[in-house]
Amino acid sequence: MLHHTVLVVLVVWMTVDHASSAAAPSPQIEDEELSHTEAANTVEMTEKLNSTNFEQLEKLRIRSTYVARSCNDIKDRYNEQEDGLYSLTTANGMVYQTFCDMTTAGGGWTLVASVHENSIYGRCTVGDRWSSQQGNNADLPDGDGNWSNRNTFGAAEGATSDDFKNPGYYDIVAQDMSVWHVPNNFPLEHWNLAAILRYHTENRFLHLYGGNLFQLFKQYPVRYNVGSCSNRGPSVPIVYDHGDRESTRILYGPNSRTEFEPGFITFRAINKERAAMAICSGVKPITGCNTEHYCIGGGGYFHPEQCGDFPSFDWDRLEGEQGWSASKEMTEAAVLLFYR
Amino acid sequence: MLHHTVLVVLVVWMTVDHASSAAAPSPQIEDEELSHTEAANTVEMTEKLNSTNFEQLEKLRIRSTYVARSCNDIKDRYNEQEDGLYSLTTANGMVYQTFCDMTTAGGGWTLVASVHENSIYGRCTVGDRWSSQQGNNADLPDGDGNWSNRNTFGAAEGATSDDFKNPGYYDIVAQDMSVWHVPNNFPLEHWNLAAILRYHTENRFLHLYGGNLFQLFKQYPVRYNVGSCSNRGPSVPIVYDHGDRESTRILYGPNSRTEFEPGFITFRAINKERAAMAICSGVKPITGCNTEHYCIGGGGYFHPEQCGDFPSFDWDRLEGEQGWSASKEMTEAAVLLFYR
Amino acid sequence: MLHHTVLVVLVVWMTVDHASSAAAPSPQIEDEELSHTEAANTVEMTEKLNSTNFEQLEKLRIRSTYVARSCNDIKDRYNEQEDGLYSLTTANGMVYQTFCDMTTAGGGWTLVASVHENSIYGRCTVGDRWSSQQGNNADLPDGDGNWSNRNTFGAAEGATSDDFKNPGYYDIVAQDMSVWHVPNNFPLEHWNLAAILRYHTENRFLHLYGGNLFQLFKQYPVRYNVGSCSNRGPSVPIVYDHGDRESTRILYGPNSRTEFEPGFITFRAINKERAAMAICSGVKPITGCNTEHYCIGGGGYFHPEQCGDFPSFDWDRLEGEQGWSASKEMTEAAVLLFYR
Repeated sequence: MLHHTVLVVLVVWMTVDHASSAAAPSPQIEDEELSHTEAANTVEMTEKLNSTNFEQLEKLRIRSTYVARSCNDIKDRYNEQEDGLYSLTTANGMVYQTFCDMTTAGGGWTLVASVHENSIYGRCTVGDRWSSQQGNNADLPDGDGNWSNRNTFGAAEGATSDDFKNPGYYDIVAQDMSVWHVPNNFPLEHWNLAAILRYHTENRFLHLYGGNLFQLFKQYPVRYNVGSCSNRGPSVPIVYDHGDRESTRILYGPNSRTEFEPGFITFRAINKERAAMAICSGVKPITGCNTEHYCIGGGGYFHPEQCGDFPSFDWDRLEGEQGWSASKEMTEAAVLLFYR
Repeated sequence: MLHHTVLVVLVVWMTVDHASSAAAPSPQIEDEELSHTEAANTVEMTEKLNSTNFEQLEKLRIRSTYVARSCNDIKDRYNEQEDGLYSLTTANGMVYQTFCDMTTAGGGWTLVASVHENSIYGRCTVGDRWSSQQGNNADLPDGDGNWSNRNTFGAAEGATSDDFKNPGYYDIVAQDMSVWHVPNNFPLEHWNLAAILRYHTENRFLHLYGGNLFQLFKQYPVRYNVGSCSNRGPSVPIVYDHGDRESTRILYGPNSRTEFEPGFITFRAINKERAAMAICSGVKPITGCNTEHYCIGGGGYFHPEQCGDFPSFDWDRLEGEQGWSASKEMTEAAVLLFYR
Repeated sequence: MLHHTVLVVLVVWMTVDHASSAAAPSPQIEDEELSHTEAANTVEMTEKLNSTNFEQLEKLRIRSTYVARSCNDIKDRYNEQEDGLYSLTTANGMVYQTFCDMTTAGGGWTLVASVHENSIYGRCTVGDRWSSQQGNNADLPDGDGNWSNRNTFGAAEGATSDDFKNPGYYDIVAQDMSVWHVPNNFPLEHWNLAAILRYHTENRFLHLYGGNLFQLFKQYPVRYNVGSCSNRGPSVPIVYDHGDRESTRILYGPNSRTEFEPGFITFRAINKERAAMAICSGVKPITGCNTEHYCIGGGGYFHPEQCGDFPSFDWDRLEGEQGWSASKEMTEAAVLLFYR
């Protein structure tokens, strides 16, 4: 391949034609990956990336032959200890690939979903699969209904840039959950280190609710007008893997901090307008009923200026950390949901 | 695993924290699966579900190795007689999984599509893939065009909770069709028993139209203003597998019943406003041209208060069985399409 | 199978019941495939299509076992010389199928994406994944952001009837690009011959930009207001595989022809309203800044009457070839993007 490198260097100056000799100005670029890009601009690095590592690829392809219903099965049956993509099979025989966390607290965690806010300005528009893509509409109290149906969407490698839900969400019978908040667009191989918050439960609470969120949300529907603020679902204590109670607190807005207690994950919150949310990540609402500012997912109807996968994380429109607005870090991070 | 059970029982009372001691009120819950959920709430049952049946999983994974273009091929080549998911391969080599009905009338039926009404209030909005997701628009006479293109969407396990179309729709060369109306959100393993209507053709009519719906709808485009009410496509007699002519009749609205004759499946109907529909399931229009109340799918333009995958099943807004409104059972059931 | 043929002929006249004895009128049908359909109407041809070619299917399924990151790897490792679908694996182990062009200029080209205009009337509505599905909105300068994220959508067999993006888009580290403009809805097996324009680069320019479009567009964001008309990205000379400079010229509108020079592919153009486009296929803008009439993809904000995957190819609403309107051939062809 070396002669290619030489050829490139020669050809470049002759034929690539920029509109201006300087690179395009990009003052708004804040993407975490740009440093990688810059490094990759050297011909040497590109050349190295360019040669496929077949040995590694063969190793990864062996995982396609595994027969397991969860990452926990894979850990037990195949003694795999490496984070990454594996093939799973549902009880009905549907085969799919997802990410397994094989290291946290003993490993065996299956990524089953991610909640990604594609536009904080959208009000239950395209891309709001975890609330509604039908507009804010009281006639559709369940919205898209994805918290309690068998629809699937997205792909594991895109879980931080779009909503993701795989068959494991409804198929795996699990005991505990783990949640990672990973900045948008981060690649899979850096999710663990890039996460701004990671935690898991360890009291096997899912046993009580049918073994997964699909079943839990049948009992506690994420539905407009299903109950009042006092009718929320379970709050489960969490063990932190990255972050702590104090760091959880400051990820949400100052006003929100007066309403919740950190150190829990809460399911099916209801706000004062009787809108339902699916998950309050890292916290338990204690006083007040303004959960739309710090809980995610939802039914199909909210206050007219709310509605969306992160229903009202931007309420005070002040780029976060003011009033009811969540921090920019939180608003621009996908929420990855794991089972074990 | 038994020690887990014990641990759970101990932990539960200490750590799971409900907003109220009673379960959330859920007066609106009418989901057919709640009885399963309730059973699953006992720790014993969850524990049992929790242990993966690897023997069964291995058996299902063997099906991934099958080389066949249709469920009929699988029946003939591999002598499989069990309903469930199998792997198929298109003539071009695309591999996909779908549901095979191996029991009805000799078996060998391939699920190629499902038409699911995600919101009877939507007017050709997100989720109306079998009509249009672009709004009611005369400039787009074909709407999304999915009846006669090679787009695919959804997954077999989600076929009763979202639209579904796999490569078999355009790839398989078939002779007959089978149709199942299955209540929304029912799981694959109960589709057959849960269906409110099931029938098939047995005159090999698809031979005359290119072997599948993709080809049939090239000849009879599902397109606004392509013709008048008298220009509808073929009506084919059906054999009932569940239900009969009388039960078909009462699934649609009282006014609709005066227009059609049950015992047929009809393709590409056109109403008096020159809107086109794809399939009139179970019936043949005889008098009148108000097919939008009992035929499904469509082009991109209808009467302004119609348009959608079930274009106007709710016309009289009376929860069904009044005027032109179809029954609630029909409106809330996905239409599964099979080839053989 | 012969007895089936006989049976069909007998049954047809008895049971298939048309609304009118003549076939439906279809004056608007202009689909290129109708001639195939008509041929297939004869029972003999359908019968022949109906018998699965298992030998061919087995051959295609062997390709599922290949371990390769790109079509170029497959060419080198497995000595395959036939165009068609193959299985690839990303560096992370994600397995997917796509089309390989194994013949053009030595072969080894991987189809990684297609840009398909689903409605020239839409203004960044559903289906405009390469610009925005959120409406024309200055608050979302990146629109859906798919030029520089890891989302995937669509399937290879549907690449001419819907947008398509597979993991190869961000995973493959390549040197050159190839582009095919294929009329909408053409089947994979005829793409090569049906294309109205095909070309490739051969100066290995991708080396300079991180090896693929995902990396290139990190450096040159497809984002509203990121720069002015003079800040466009690289223009790379092309080698024609079908068509030439003159045929490229006349695919765009008369007014557009005064602005560009054919014989190049240009990345990240910016128009006078500071809207960004991703690719100017076949041309390099030279004078003027009205690139929205001949460049595709885009950020989330344009002139209010523009926005979309082909942002303003229909500006003069004259069915093409008038003023700024591109030709009907160009507007109704999907743009297929390949790497090598």
